[in-house]
Amino acid sequence: MSQFVYHRRVQFSETDMAGIVHFSNYYRYMEEAEHAFLRSLGLSVMMTRDDGSVIGWPRVRTSCAYEAPARFEDEIEIRLNVSRKGVKSLTLDMEFWRGETRLARGSLKTVCCIVAHNTELISIPIPPDIDAKIVESPELSDDLA
Amino acid sequence: MSQFVYHRRVQFSETDMAGIVHFSNYYRYMEEAEHAFLRSLGLSVMMTRDDGSVIGWPRVRTSCAYEAPARFEDEIEIRLNVSRKGVKSLTLDMEFWRGETRLARGSLKTVCCIVAHNTELISIPIPPDIDAKIVESPELSDDLA
Amino acid sequence: MSQFVYHRRVQFSETDMAGIVHFSNYYRYMEEAEHAFLRSLGLSVMMTRDDGSVIGWPRVRTSCAYEAPARFEDEIEIRLNVSRKGVKSLTLDMEFWRGETRLARGSLKTVCCIVAHNTELISIPIPPDIDAKIVESPELSDDLA
Amino acid sequence: MSQFVYHRRVQFSETDMAGIVHFSNYYRYMEEAEHAFLRSLGLSVMMTRDDGSVIGWPRVRTSCAYEAPARFEDEIEIRLNVSRKGVKSLTLDMEFWRGETRLARGSLKTVCCIVAHNTELISIPIPPDIDAKIVESPELSDDLA
Repeated sequence: MSQFVYHRRVQFSETDMAGIVHFSNYYRYMEEAEHAFLRSLGLSVMMTRDDGSVIGWPRVRTSCAYEAPARFEDEIEIRLNVSRKGVKSLTLDMEFWRGETRLARGSLKTVCCIVAHNTELISIPIPPDIDAKIVESPELSDDLA
Repeated sequence: MSQFVYHRRVQFSETDMAGIVHFSNYYRYMEEAEHAFLRSLGLSVMMTRDDGSVIGWPRVRTSCAYEAPARFEDEIEIRLNVSRKGVKSLTLDMEFWRGETRLARGSLKTVCCIVAHNTELISIPIPPDIDAKIVESPELSDDLA
Repeated sequence: MSQFVYHRRVQFSETDMAGIVHFSNYYRYMEEAEHAFLRSLGLSVMMTRDDGSVIGWPRVRTSCAYEAPARFEDEIEIRLNVSRKGVKSLTLDMEFWRGETRLARGSLKTVCCIVAHNTELISIPIPPDIDAKIVESPELSDDLA
Repeated sequence: MSQFVYHRRVQFSETDMAGIVHFSNYYRYMEEAEHAFLRSLGLSVMMTRDDGSVIGWPRVRTSCAYEAPARFEDEIEIRLNVSRKGVKSLTLDMEFWRGETRLARGSLKTVCCIVAHNTELISIPIPPDIDAKIVESPELSDDLA
């Protein structure tokens, strides 16, 4: 129901000498989908609050399982689900599809933090106005863990 | 004993507007360490065999858990262990350290394949001459899974 | 008249710790615009010909002049002109705009080549069927050289 | 005499499906050489001054001419010269070599600025203590412009 879908064409600079998308780029695609999802809710990944503090979402854990390679000019569909919403953290599960072929499954676990340059990141409970906009949804499929 | 160590300085282009290393770059660092490890054994990640075929190591699964941010000009030490050597696959566990601080733990699971452009990747048993050079070693610490 | 326009949103991973788009990414944006331009003509930057050879367009010279910084989530318009079509080469001039603000001007000079792995690149005259689709157009503005 | 030399091995993720280093990465290599050069002088590209302001060096103009492709695992030597030191700007010329083969020539023109997030960049004269450390040197060879 609350799945968010993001489309992305593979760019030349994202391929490597094996002729396929470099595996690290799936993480950039996941982040793009995450940020498009946040924008769709009227949010942004770096938000300045009324008190001047900046809220960001550093990653705690990321993972990706690769099932089929993506190639230059492929149009990829990324399906994003909020698989878990904690007090301070979000877990986003993603599936990558090219037509009927599932290419990969990935996950981003992020934690809500006050961020500032040259200081420690301080985790905080997700502010209520942000929390209210994010709906936890069922898993895409079996758990990627 | 069989731990491989790789050093890397954080470059400016690897930071993001949060002032820290972008999380996707840990995967590039892991790959650099993996390739330096292979070179240290007289191997390369893309090897042309006597029969003209090319052997590569596409990723099956990758993951990273982030514990402390890395910043511009940090000198990072990556400690690589071959945590599992299967018939066709390798699992490499990595720890990222800056001095006494552990920054992250990651894992690359790769599978030995015949690679060629515009064709499917075909997994094969690790050839004996390559297999003989790679020694499975105890886990770094508790399992990252 | 024959200007090609490409739109692109700035992604988080393209920023650096100065809070702006890393200058190297303008070259990736130019390439994306170039490839979208080629697709709009029914072409691709890597084309297998009937004789099995592969035609590519390695760069001879690239440049960019930066006028104002681009930031996360900016929507950028790239205006592409074929400023010169030679026997073997193309020069593409680009302007980057965010609303009424010109951010940068860049240029890609590329040469038509037979490309193959592990061999030299061999420049060739642009094949007539490709040449016929690409129209030289007046400069965008004063020459960036 | 005042030429600075930086060595860099080509990484897998820096190649593209044409089997060579993606052209945009030469700009990242140039920046790495620039920053290593600044470090060799006891400077950094982002310096906090005694008054709390941060000095950075945004790019005004960058260019690169490509002569021969670089490939995975190549060891590249980058030779850096300060071809011009102005009141507010520096022009760094670079040559890329692999053994006896010159691969490319590039240039970075940068301007000394007060940088801060979400504000305009303000150019300033190079502070005397920084200026004193940077020596203008003769051109590498004929001008790349």
